[in-house]
Amino acid sequence: MKSLQQLAHHKAFAGLVSPRILPSRTIASTQLWQRKFSASVTAASQLPALDASKLTVTTTTTPKELTPNKDLVFGKTFTDHMLSIEWTATDGWQSPQIIPYQNLSLDPSTCVFHYAFECFEGMKAYKDKNGGIRLFRPNKNMERLNKSSARIALPTFDGEALTKLIGEFVKLDSRFIPDARGYSLYLRPTMIGTQKTLGVGPPGSALLFVIASPVGPYYPTGFKAISLEATDYAVRAWPGGVGDKKLGANYAPCILPQLEAASRGFQQNLWLFGEEEYVTEVGTMNLFIALKDKETGQKELITAPLDGTILEGVTRDSVLSLARERLIPQGWKISERKIRMSDVAKAAEEGRMIEVFGAGTAAIVSPVRNISYQGKMVDCGLKENEEAGEIALQMKNWIERIQYGDEQHPWSFVI
Amino acid sequence: MKSLQQLAHHKAFAGLVSPRILPSRTIASTQLWQRKFSASVTAASQLPALDASKLTVTTTTTPKELTPNKDLVFGKTFTDHMLSIEWTATDGWQSPQIIPYQNLSLDPSTCVFHYAFECFEGMKAYKDKNGGIRLFRPNKNMERLNKSSARIALPTFDGEALTKLIGEFVKLDSRFIPDARGYSLYLRPTMIGTQKTLGVGPPGSALLFVIASPVGPYYPTGFKAISLEATDYAVRAWPGGVGDKKLGANYAPCILPQLEAASRGFQQNLWLFGEEEYVTEVGTMNLFIALKDKETGQKELITAPLDGTILEGVTRDSVLSLARERLIPQGWKISERKIRMSDVAKAAEEGRMIEVFGAGTAAIVSPVRNISYQGKMVDCGLKENEEAGEIALQMKNWIERIQYGDEQHPWSFVI
Repeated sequence: MKSLQQLAHHKAFAGLVSPRILPSRTIASTQLWQRKFSASVTAASQLPALDASKLTVTTTTTPKELTPNKDLVFGKTFTDHMLSIEWTATDGWQSPQIIPYQNLSLDPSTCVFHYAFECFEGMKAYKDKNGGIRLFRPNKNMERLNKSSARIALPTFDGEALTKLIGEFVKLDSRFIPDARGYSLYLRPTMIGTQKTLGVGPPGSALLFVIASPVGPYYPTGFKAISLEATDYAVRAWPGGVGDKKLGANYAPCILPQLEAASRGFQQNLWLFGEEEYVTEVGTMNLFIALKDKETGQKELITAPLDGTILEGVTRDSVLSLARERLIPQGWKISERKIRMSDVAKAAEEGRMIEVFGAGTAAIVSPVRNISYQGKMVDCGLKENEEAGEIALQMKNWIERIQYGDEQHPWSFVI
Repeated sequence: MKSLQQLAHHKAFAGLVSPRILPSRTIASTQLWQRKFSASVTAASQLPALDASKLTVTTTTTPKELTPNKDLVFGKTFTDHMLSIEWTATDGWQSPQIIPYQNLSLDPSTCVFHYAFECFEGMKAYKDKNGGIRLFRPNKNMERLNKSSARIALPTFDGEALTKLIGEFVKLDSRFIPDARGYSLYLRPTMIGTQKTLGVGPPGSALLFVIASPVGPYYPTGFKAISLEATDYAVRAWPGGVGDKKLGANYAPCILPQLEAASRGFQQNLWLFGEEEYVTEVGTMNLFIALKDKETGQKELITAPLDGTILEGVTRDSVLSLARERLIPQGWKISERKIRMSDVAKAAEEGRMIEVFGAGTAAIVSPVRNISYQGKMVDCGLKENEEAGEIALQMKNWIERIQYGDEQHPWSFVI
């Protein structure tokens, strides 16, 4: 087995392993440590960087038939091509390639199969009313993918170069983007370690690929509020862990608790944390809670703070920004703060609950009707015939208008 | 995206998702929850089970040259063949196949690349002095692989059937097992989710494969005691998490802290947990600490208890069993208990430290010279010219004698 001292001299990670002594308290130092790793990403390597100008394109000779909009299933059908870029620790980033969509052929000892060297992003391309193609805040996805990859000793890359390459790929396969509101082309940038060895160490080679799947609206017939089950017997993430990164490692362990919730009729599970039972995330979305202050009656929109256990959702950030810009003038307070599940239940009991919704790339927002907690149902403020609250509706409209280019906004990136 | 209610009716997992209400305290209920999942594994399915009698064998037409013993590197070269068994949620386990060692060809949307649906085992085959081939406690590996796979919604299997199939595979490739003490054939049973979808749900198909790599002794020129760095800024595992399972998800996030330790000259990092800084594991091994009681002077061999954060090491279990059988009569106390790093440091300061060693399949035991903790070096009791303590040496000899069949023992399984 490679010695760890050899590994420490592994070229591509020279910038990641500094000889400084780290501070010594677990939770308090987590953010500092993460900043350090993130900060050193840019200085990582003298090897060839990702270079969009070196792109080569091989088009398919067997173009696929388009799936009718009504038959689209999330992540099931893919476009004609894929973007594929190899990296090695000795030679850096290789020339990017757009190639026909095809299987990956990998040795069974490849480290992605054994040690979960894998991270990904979820983003979408939209067709605007003039036929233009737009991405939504791609810089946020690039930034997060770099943070994720650095955390598991995979290489980092120039985010602008990858955005440009994704643009080329999407333009080539633009016929797959459905031309209808609520439809889009879901993009899945993925990075995997490809070194052929069972030794546990930083991968000496990696593959960054992007595939694309046409998708329809999450709620084809309009919002349908969901029921959540609060999960207190399993824990998704921990301070000092990797729950804030978009790693494959964070997903497989979540399935069983979701199945448990589903077996009792709940669409998703809600992850609580610690003895305080802080509300963290719901299934694969961030969570927002709108309630009235007990003393002042002020309306407050609350989401969990980025303490290392919460995925740094792009939609989460967008909801927060829009809320600060457009709801604060209406008298709202916008808070990134910890809130106990018992306090959520209390707000509901006391008639102070306004609404609750999940936020993520797939649905934008996902209204919540109720949450099962300690054997009781916590009502989340919707009227019986209502499937979404006012803020959720507003957020969806605001964000979609930007995504589809109805509103000129710096978040919308025309390719 | 598939609804979670659909997922809950996913045939193969019917046994895993019971409609019972679960108890409601996070940490206390973790073990109960895990027992429940483990217990329901056997009743999982009415689909075809793994059937060793259906094995088909296709031998290679291009046999490899053997690597000379002195050039063997852990997990780098592999034998001529591999064992490969497919599973689907609709048809259960397919016929097992031994086929020439070959690449896996997988669609880029395959769930193993995105959500870390992967778990594995590490075990070894040994040649005894009569030319017989032996496995070491294979039932423990089968049991653990079933627990790991069930925890990430992958299928379970009949452990005896897989052991039998592994036996056939090892016999076919037996020329790769070096015929020398300390050498063996490292076996890597691996299960991956193979469903082609980006939807986050239980995989509808999986592949169980086994590859084999001839390996030499961990310490070719005799023991070399290692130096550890105590890690308190990152956390490997937590209560209610999956740190006790052999999932790929537990490995990639560990590389950076190991590189950090290596950059300061330490061979491995030692994971502490919580404000109490309990000693948990070292790199990819369990840890044993031998010290003298302050009051009575009694010798005590301590390892962390299986509280859900500790990998259930086969070597850990073997060391504990042998210690109970052979050290207790010599006056030792054998403890599975939590111990704070500060108490380890105190024992060293007070001259009560006997020795410290890691335990795992790769090295059997790995003696520790010292541990860097809060800027000081904790001396682990070895004399300056000593590379291993008495217990570590004894354990290695006891376990190797069983592995190589010098001593008749129920743990040694002749194939």
